[in-house]
Amino acid sequence: MGNDRRSVLGRALLILGTVKDAGGGLLLSDISRRCGLPLTTTHRIVSDLAGWGALERDGAGRYQIGLRLWELASVTPRSVGLRRVAFPFMQDLFETTHRGVHLAIREKDQVVFVERFLSPETATDRTQVGARYELHATAIGLVLLAHAPFELQEEVLTGPLAVPSWHPPVTERELRATLAHIRRSGHAVTPIRDEYLGVAAPVYGTAGTVIAALSLILPISEQYGPRLAHLQATVRGIARALGGGAGLAAGLAAGLAAGF
Amino acid sequence: MGNDRRSVLGRALLILGTVKDAGGGLLLSDISRRCGLPLTTTHRIVSDLAGWGALERDGAGRYQIGLRLWELASVTPRSVGLRRVAFPFMQDLFETTHRGVHLAIREKDQVVFVERFLSPETATDRTQVGARYELHATAIGLVLLAHAPFELQEEVLTGPLAVPSWHPPVTERELRATLAHIRRSGHAVTPIRDEYLGVAAPVYGTAGTVIAALSLILPISEQYGPRLAHLQATVRGIARALGGGAGLAAGLAAGLAAGF
Repeated sequence: MGNDRRSVLGRALLILGTVKDAGGGLLLSDISRRCGLPLTTTHRIVSDLAGWGALERDGAGRYQIGLRLWELASVTPRSVGLRRVAFPFMQDLFETTHRGVHLAIREKDQVVFVERFLSPETATDRTQVGARYELHATAIGLVLLAHAPFELQEEVLTGPLAVPSWHPPVTERELRATLAHIRRSGHAVTPIRDEYLGVAAPVYGTAGTVIAALSLILPISEQYGPRLAHLQATVRGIARALGGGAGLAAGLAAGLAAGF
Repeated sequence: MGNDRRSVLGRALLILGTVKDAGGGLLLSDISRRCGLPLTTTHRIVSDLAGWGALERDGAGRYQIGLRLWELASVTPRSVGLRRVAFPFMQDLFETTHRGVHLAIREKDQVVFVERFLSPETATDRTQVGARYELHATAIGLVLLAHAPFELQEEVLTGPLAVPSWHPPVTERELRATLAHIRRSGHAVTPIRDEYLGVAAPVYGTAGTVIAALSLILPISEQYGPRLAHLQATVRGIARALGGGAGLAAGLAAGLAAGF
């Protein structure tokens, strides 16, 4: 009974994840096949999810993530709560620099992008809000990794260290030196495809822990010193706004209660 | 069996909705009480949801909406897909006017706000992204109502027409005249608390249907003519961007497939 109940919910979450990953919407038969679930079971769960608004059926009969799920997610503290506080600071940085600005958090051993402002000139920039990336291949991920718990750093450092095709190979030794340098200097700088430079800095919560990172994407020819100073001022502003009153947790909770 | 399966999923969705509405996070016992579910049942479902990442438990033992749900919702076509296309246009409008800019869609008989830029000067502005409001009390809602299907308009027109406390009463007759004027003129203008003016215009999809509305919040003393012209140019820009190629549905689908 307990198992059966769990499996209905597990199947519903599997279906939602499958529809999300598909991107462009899935027919009922596609969902059934991709999830490895019988068509009748799939139909029953999908109907319930659609009835509630977690899935929506488009004109072509394809199911997509529904508005109701988005409404639920609009109060997620770790992403939306952070975004609400950081947004005006990111906007100021973007308006002043007109360079790509990214806000990301760490979820286990991956980077999750929470918000971005894209520069018109750096449109090859491929980060997707709500998508996950490796920690060790970008400036923003390296900042998050440099401040991650020790066990997690060791796990990544001694793991396979896969990199994108345009990225030079990374060795454990180099990565250790890079992380130490990031902790000392307070920022990370990495080239992207010989065209751009990613410059990233940590966002501190009130407990002195790093809760997010912010990055600027610059043309590689540009002097990054003045931009870095601006970035550092921005992350300090965000940290101050997060820490107002009784700290991050209370601040985010209060923000949510007040309507973020 | 079928009923039981449905009810597990139904209970999970009830729990998620309850945690969302609470805002600041709920203890297990709060969830149990608010949902009217036994503590053991609540515990089992909450544990499953937390295991998957749809809920997260904070340091104080309170459950909040989890990052995984936000990641699922990051590909919702009707909100995030639209937002992706509209965002740069909204940003331009905000940078030029420095007035509040809101993007909303209609969900049945309510307005759902999808994105907003807040003006520093109009900070009393209470709209919440992901929250729902009545259609007939704001300029942006009136635009969406004026272009809603006939049956839905009649339903709202002949309904109770409740308004916020600061808003003068609305009669069916006045509302009919207002909606007709909005359709003729292509925009809506409404005062907000004798302090601001909401100016809104429809965003058209390729099928000639209104799929969203955009509004600007101005100080009531400001001439709204020039701002309205800018707003109208912005909604046309968004409509053009949505319609690129094979229309809105295909455009959003392609955008999602490519990583919005």
